[in-house]
Amino acid sequence: MGALRRKLTRAGLPGLLVTHLPDLRYLCGFTGSSAALAITRRRARMFTDGRYRAQAAAEVEAAETEIVAGAPAVSAAQWLAAQPGVLLAGFDPARTTVAELARWKTALPGKLRRGFFQDVPTPLVENLRMVKDEAELALMAEAALKGCQLFEHILRFLRPGIAEIEVAAELEHQARLLGAEGMSFETIIASGERSALPHGRATAAPLPRRGFVTMDFGIIHKGYCSDMTRTVFLGTPKAEERRAYQAVLQAQQAAVESVTAGASCAEVDEAARSILRREGLGEAFSHSTGHGVGLEIHEPPRVGAGQSARLQAGMVITIEPGVYLPGKFGIRIEDMVAVSRGGGQVLTPAVKALIEL
Amino acid sequence: MGALRRKLTRAGLPGLLVTHLPDLRYLCGFTGSSAALAITRRRARMFTDGRYRAQAAAEVEAAETEIVAGAPAVSAAQWLAAQPGVLLAGFDPARTTVAELARWKTALPGKLRRGFFQDVPTPLVENLRMVKDEAELALMAEAALKGCQLFEHILRFLRPGIAEIEVAAELEHQARLLGAEGMSFETIIASGERSALPHGRATAAPLPRRGFVTMDFGIIHKGYCSDMTRTVFLGTPKAEERRAYQAVLQAQQAAVESVTAGASCAEVDEAARSILRREGLGEAFSHSTGHGVGLEIHEPPRVGAGQSARLQAGMVITIEPGVYLPGKFGIRIEDMVAVSRGGGQVLTPAVKALIEL
Repeated sequence: MGALRRKLTRAGLPGLLVTHLPDLRYLCGFTGSSAALAITRRRARMFTDGRYRAQAAAEVEAAETEIVAGAPAVSAAQWLAAQPGVLLAGFDPARTTVAELARWKTALPGKLRRGFFQDVPTPLVENLRMVKDEAELALMAEAALKGCQLFEHILRFLRPGIAEIEVAAELEHQARLLGAEGMSFETIIASGERSALPHGRATAAPLPRRGFVTMDFGIIHKGYCSDMTRTVFLGTPKAEERRAYQAVLQAQQAAVESVTAGASCAEVDEAARSILRREGLGEAFSHSTGHGVGLEIHEPPRVGAGQSARLQAGMVITIEPGVYLPGKFGIRIEDMVAVSRGGGQVLTPAVKALIEL
Repeated sequence: MGALRRKLTRAGLPGLLVTHLPDLRYLCGFTGSSAALAITRRRARMFTDGRYRAQAAAEVEAAETEIVAGAPAVSAAQWLAAQPGVLLAGFDPARTTVAELARWKTALPGKLRRGFFQDVPTPLVENLRMVKDEAELALMAEAALKGCQLFEHILRFLRPGIAEIEVAAELEHQARLLGAEGMSFETIIASGERSALPHGRATAAPLPRRGFVTMDFGIIHKGYCSDMTRTVFLGTPKAEERRAYQAVLQAQQAAVESVTAGASCAEVDEAARSILRREGLGEAFSHSTGHGVGLEIHEPPRVGAGQSARLQAGMVITIEPGVYLPGKFGIRIEDMVAVSRGGGQVLTPAVKALIEL
């Protein structure tokens, strides 16, 4: 909260209205599904409804709590406007709908309606969340290791003929048994020709006797998301398949090795992309190299071409180059990597050499 | 699309920009995760990115398709503004962020920036979606029946000592094996004293030797959500527990029986609430009676006190009264009900009499 207040002061904002739930969780610990947080230079007050009375009392830190009957954000807007010296307040335009903003304004005294709410084009809280502290890094490492355990588990389960959705079901079932709160996104199991779909949801398609199986999955552990991808082969790969796999693996490792505090996101992307280009697979790598991850599965920074933002110690990013050859096959390999001054630390140490099952 | 165009004409809108994905799926069949749909009185054009080329070709009906490199909604905004006779276009302010709207405006020619986009306070597409056609009702009935199968399955699995998350895991695993695309919301398994939490996610808590277990869950089947709740008892209930269960059951049945085209949502809510009030449990029923369900788990109408909207044939709503006695226990019973002229049809015909295990 201290770092956020310094940002508010620099931005000339005496107040801030926070409604994005992962931001609330980050700032004051609340995990319920309906709340708003009002912050001034001296006070912070979280508004929620009666269902969450006990939960708010147990969870909320660094903020007062008020239980309200109507929409929490409307009460938060009114409270902010009533604070002495608070003549304007910031909000996140990327997390606020046009209808919500209109509702907040309508709830204010007439003279404040026009100028009170100021959009903050740089997302203040999201940018703070990019850099994780020690406790967050420990939770993310735990989440990532559980992901690796799932991968080990599912390897024993894969065989030709079982449906992709059975693989997803087994993985998700095991995730629950490992204590996951849920999956961090819809599990991707894409086999055979379907592995050429970068976002191939699990379908009823049976795993082939011969072919790649791409598995991209993550769990939620104490609020934090894991994310990893491995691609394995059922049967014996042909030379072309083996060559493509080695190219993706080399690209992925080069990008991981390029991670260090101070490197630009574009440099990390180029580390992977240049290798695939050299192997004639540049066109087949049709997405960016990675993204930040934390309380949400997709967070800044974006690790892609043209992204000049620089990595900072404490960021956690994914490194996930892939190649997709429609009608043939696809391959993606993804790790979570924590950025530090000395380089990157891989949080998902599951085997990446080509596994033939 | 015809019904929507009639609404546009009545609202004096020559164009509409649709970005909410369930609305897109409803209007043109597309199920990808990045797209925007521009509609005029004569044409409809869906914009998506290169990842979805094949999927758009296979799925999209009643609209042209264009693959674009940047943000689909920005291209859609520009296309709309370039259509002859389209001098303004509607958008849904509840589904558009302040930042998105600003981005669309910036992409328009200068003279159109101020007045082109008009917010449409009544959500046109969402209101169309409230009333399901025959094909949709058939899919929702299938989804609901799969939910009932899951309930039958999980009854054989419940026993004292197993963790709530194991119950959730088993349920979700079985849902996958039944072909569900996913769960329609986070599975609620709340046992013993935890059943008094209306939104008790499954935790590591073991099921008690004696006590209620509330199970609230739903699946996604061909895009459509199911939603049902049953509360069962492990061991033998005391008189107070049995009485409370019977009160909730009576309230639930009374509300189901009050469902018919033309009834107001408030009347349906009151049918349940008046019975719980009479039993001295009015305060313990701390939420509203139900909500619409369809491509999304929560849709209009809201079935609660003060809601004057009237039910229409073809709507599908939940009826889910509950009582919550903190420190003691909670009970909720929920069905999905399709509204017709002659009354309501329960889509979730799983047993509701008190089950003692």
